[in-house]
Amino acid sequence: MKIIMYSVRSEEQPFIDIYAAAHPDLQIETHAEVLTQENIEWAKGSDAVCILPRGPVTRDMFARLHAFGIHIFATRSVGYETFDLVAAREFGITITNVPSYSPSAIAEFAVALTLDLFRNTRSLYRRVEQQNFVWQGLMGREINGQTVGIVGTGHIGAVAAKAFAGFGAQVIAYDKYPKAELSESGLLTYVDSLDELFAAADIISFHCPLTPENTGCVNDDSIKLMKDGVHIINTARGKLIDSKALLAGLRSGKVAGAALDVYDNEAPYYGQDWNGKEIEDETLNAFLAMDNVLITPHVAFYTHVAIQNMVDIALNSVLEVAQTGTSRNIVQG
Amino acid sequence: MKIIMYSVRSEEQPFIDIYAAAHPDLQIETHAEVLTQENIEWAKGSDAVCILPRGPVTRDMFARLHAFGIHIFATRSVGYETFDLVAAREFGITITNVPSYSPSAIAEFAVALTLDLFRNTRSLYRRVEQQNFVWQGLMGREINGQTVGIVGTGHIGAVAAKAFAGFGAQVIAYDKYPKAELSESGLLTYVDSLDELFAAADIISFHCPLTPENTGCVNDDSIKLMKDGVHIINTARGKLIDSKALLAGLRSGKVAGAALDVYDNEAPYYGQDWNGKEIEDETLNAFLAMDNVLITPHVAFYTHVAIQNMVDIALNSVLEVAQTGTSRNIVQG
Ligand SMILES: NC(=O)c1ccc[n+]([C@@H]2O[C@H](COP(=O)([O-])OP(=O)(O)OC[C@H]3O[C@@H](n4cnc5c(N)ncnc54)[C@H](O)[C@@H]3O)[C@@H](O)[C@H]2O)c1
Ligand SMILES: NC(=O)c1ccc[n+]([C@@H]2O[C@H](COP(=O)([O-])OP(=O)(O)OC[C@H]3O[C@@H](n4cnc5c(N)ncnc54)[C@H](O)[C@@H]3O)[C@@H](O)[C@H]2O)c1
Repeated sequence: MKIIMYSVRSEEQPFIDIYAAAHPDLQIETHAEVLTQENIEWAKGSDAVCILPRGPVTRDMFARLHAFGIHIFATRSVGYETFDLVAAREFGITITNVPSYSPSAIAEFAVALTLDLFRNTRSLYRRVEQQNFVWQGLMGREINGQTVGIVGTGHIGAVAAKAFAGFGAQVIAYDKYPKAELSESGLLTYVDSLDELFAAADIISFHCPLTPENTGCVNDDSIKLMKDGVHIINTARGKLIDSKALLAGLRSGKVAGAALDVYDNEAPYYGQDWNGKEIEDETLNAFLAMDNVLITPHVAFYTHVAIQNMVDIALNSVLEVAQTGTSRNIVQG
Repeated sequence: MKIIMYSVRSEEQPFIDIYAAAHPDLQIETHAEVLTQENIEWAKGSDAVCILPRGPVTRDMFARLHAFGIHIFATRSVGYETFDLVAAREFGITITNVPSYSPSAIAEFAVALTLDLFRNTRSLYRRVEQQNFVWQGLMGREINGQTVGIVGTGHIGAVAAKAFAGFGAQVIAYDKYPKAELSESGLLTYVDSLDELFAAADIISFHCPLTPENTGCVNDDSIKLMKDGVHIINTARGKLIDSKALLAGLRSGKVAGAALDVYDNEAPYYGQDWNGKEIEDETLNAFLAMDNVLITPHVAFYTHVAIQNMVDIALNSVLEVAQTGTSRNIVQG
């Protein structure tokens, strides 16, 4: 069997090599290039395609794969929003994803950002870089005793809740579909609405998908409901937050700090080097200049474990579909 | 009753004001100056002295206090190594300390440093400061699944163990006097020697006092026992580590990373601004230049909770001794 992989990042290659060594019957061809109308030609002769989505996968592309005799299409990501699923079905192509590659990667990063905000570590590191070992003015806060509000208690939120609880925080949570096992175990207490969580939490950490109903849920009105001195952590999706409202909240002092691994308008910037270029997004510029705002470029997922799992789970799903006709990671087929 | 306080730091004053407001019968006089042979004169007319130790408290000083009719002497710190205890006893002066002001302050900082090492956050923040949003090359590691070795499971070590366990780490520990309740609860597993801990841990975090037997316990020989790619976190005392040996271990790649809030030769530097001056300690210079070494200037204790507790517990002990003749915080009396 032969699998062709597109958009292979350099850090994935070692894990692909390990996988290949463990599966000597399997032929794996890797390309750094993103799958396009043009290079889809390279797939001829393979039995399956495995990608990271970086653009649309169109009707025409699924038609071509069908013509090549390829009926397994695996993404190494959670999302597959850009695939023409109707066409895939029509051409009999089974699609698999990686529903969860490492909840700890994202949950631990959310806690890291919280601690960095609470302990002013970025400011400490900047001082020490200047050989300034004075700590006055950088007094920290403790997670112990705080009320942490977790929004979304799925794979990632549940792990984050456990980590925050390990510090002695009181964990409350809001989820559209509460998980009884989490509240019954005593790990957290569900509240009935997002507003209730906003009103009670010292630290708010987002771990839910972006939906029409929660788009911009941090806004001028909801910030008014929050505690004075609240801290907001977002490792989920940028558009959960109305960034201008958050900036106003930070400027007024109502919001004491924010850590944002994702940002509304991140697409033009994240993954790119903008050194020496002018960033035209004024809100992002303002965030970048604030001592109590931590900006990271959508890296919460980026660990050895996560990258290896993305590779392993995607390739395992391909083999499973090829051998058994099914897999629990099938999203369409 | 009147208490005179020396070496009052600006961040302590708000908490002293809160304490004074809650104790209207108490008169509190505060000074930024460190207690010396000269300014001990200011204590005349007070009933108790409260300090942060910044130099020796000598026989002569205790004799003067006795002559002023002062027989309660409280330090807002854990340590009182620089006090002439023999003289204090002779002059009938009761000494109190603050045995523990906030274990979470130090334990949470140890975890913050671990996460910063594991997720390369300092490098990320440096890139983002340069408007560089590229994350390639900064792939992180996860605490989940690692074996964390806690050296010293007292006030701080027990809290650190619980926090690391909250991430899904396996916690092992070495303590000269193991605490049965910690192992019986399932939180951690004791090993019988420091060497055994060194051989088994992916992350080693120190939370023990410095004693003759553990001085330089991280050295050329013990590093050889450790796992390849070990991470070492020290928020306890600098002299636990032979810094030159650690540097060699980092340079060889045996030690993957280190985070040091304390340092063997920290006294000349920490608390001071050395910007523009030449640091003569070559080992410190080497650490400061390494991406996989985090240096912070002995700030793990520095939180709102800790500072307030140092003030409150010290002043409460003074009142307790004055009113009842005793206190559980008496170290000599
Ligand atoms: N920063 C990163 O690198 C990164 C990486 C992966 C995922 N993420 C984000 O993390 C989110 C959570 O991932 P997961 O694997 O835990 O997903 P999941 O599907 O396991 O859990 C999501 C949870 O959110 C709940 N939910 C759905 N709609 C909600 C709403 N309107 N309000 C509150 N809760 C709601 C669901 O019931 C579920 O419990 C993803 O949706 C994604 O936005 C970020
Ligand atoms: N970085 C900072 O700002 C900061 C602040 C406060 C304390 N500290 C350090 O943290 C240490 C721990 O503080 P604590 O409040 O938890 O003290 P503690 O007395 O409550 O606990 C110390 C533990 O270490 C154990 N121990 C004694 N000798 C040992 C040895 N040779 N090997 C292994 N374990 C040994 C003791 O049995 C005890 O369980 C202090 O000694 C101090 O060095 C650092």
